[in-house]
Amino acid sequence: MSDKRESRKAELRGRLLDAAEAQIAREGLASLKAREVTREAGCALGALYNVFEDLDRLVLDVNLRTLSRLKVMLAEACEAADPTPRAQLEALATVYAEFALGEPQLWQALFNHRVPMEVITDVYRTEHAPLIELIVPPLGILRPDLTGANLVQRARTLFSAVHGVVHLSLLGRVVGVPQEMLVEEVRALVQTLTKEPVA
Amino acid sequence: MSDKRESRKAELRGRLLDAAEAQIAREGLASLKAREVTREAGCALGALYNVFEDLDRLVLDVNLRTLSRLKVMLAEACEAADPTPRAQLEALATVYAEFALGEPQLWQALFNHRVPMEVITDVYRTEHAPLIELIVPPLGILRPDLTGANLVQRARTLFSAVHGVVHLSLLGRVVGVPQEMLVEEVRALVQTLTKEPVA
Repeated sequence: MSDKRESRKAELRGRLLDAAEAQIAREGLASLKAREVTREAGCALGALYNVFEDLDRLVLDVNLRTLSRLKVMLAEACEAADPTPRAQLEALATVYAEFALGEPQLWQALFNHRVPMEVITDVYRTEHAPLIELIVPPLGILRPDLTGANLVQRARTLFSAVHGVVHLSLLGRVVGVPQEMLVEEVRALVQTLTKEPVA
Repeated sequence: MSDKRESRKAELRGRLLDAAEAQIAREGLASLKAREVTREAGCALGALYNVFEDLDRLVLDVNLRTLSRLKVMLAEACEAADPTPRAQLEALATVYAEFALGEPQLWQALFNHRVPMEVITDVYRTEHAPLIELIVPPLGILRPDLTGANLVQRARTLFSAVHGVVHLSLLGRVVGVPQEMLVEEVRALVQTLTKEPVA
């Protein structure tokens, strides 16, 4: 009986996640409403709060789904790319840009969602870390002058730089690069950033 | 009589802008409420909508104020810096990072505020453009291989890359660089990005 209740809850959880994900993908995080999610999932409003602590936790779980999907795509791009370190980094940056272009609302939800610091620390730390872990090995080969914490630091800067070009381009801001040039610009950025050690 | 009304309206506009700016600086854009703005400005709720089309227009005008302040600081940093192109670009990036660190909420409001594209086109275009215009001349000296539209494009990428490092650092995300290392990392980024032409 308890097993049945657990499996029903898991099934409802999946439906709520699907509905929230579809709504964010369609209209963006800012338009997400608990009432519409439960209507689309076919359950009562209160049922959402039996499964998730609150709407923020639901969004967080949608974001964790998006991140695992992105992680798989990044890892696959690394495997498919030339085994040279620069090609690996270019492939990572390209996939990141293409993912953001392809799923702009889900990608933006990763960064627009403000969650309490302790939740970030617990959950995002383990989920976001792989983005950096994929960058560290090829960057380490190109930049033998960097080791340990300095290398990780520079990997974060490299990721953040690519992220910034993607971010402003997707916001459609005048200061950003046009979306049709985004992949090209991101690739040029990675080439420049990995060209040679800074004196 | 009409003049008196105009000047009273201008004075009220200033008070509403001050109140909105102070509230965004204190609690962030997401917490901004028309009722609190008018309470702090000492006027009726309806008065806000006599002066501004809606709350979005008020936020837009706060953002334009923030942008002009930033523009002045950037121009001053350029003048104070070494006249070498690399020093100029480093000074611009440093001031940008320091501004974001010093006024995180006002800075984030520049990018978190979604405004209709036609408003961006009309207003932000002229206000954001100077950020890029300051970058173009020194970058053009360092990268004589780039001209015209290509140079402007690369200036946008350079700005966006710096913006990304600042953005993720201020979000406090694990993938971002720690805030205490932000200025140093931004400077290293600019040094690397302006080092030599990409082959």
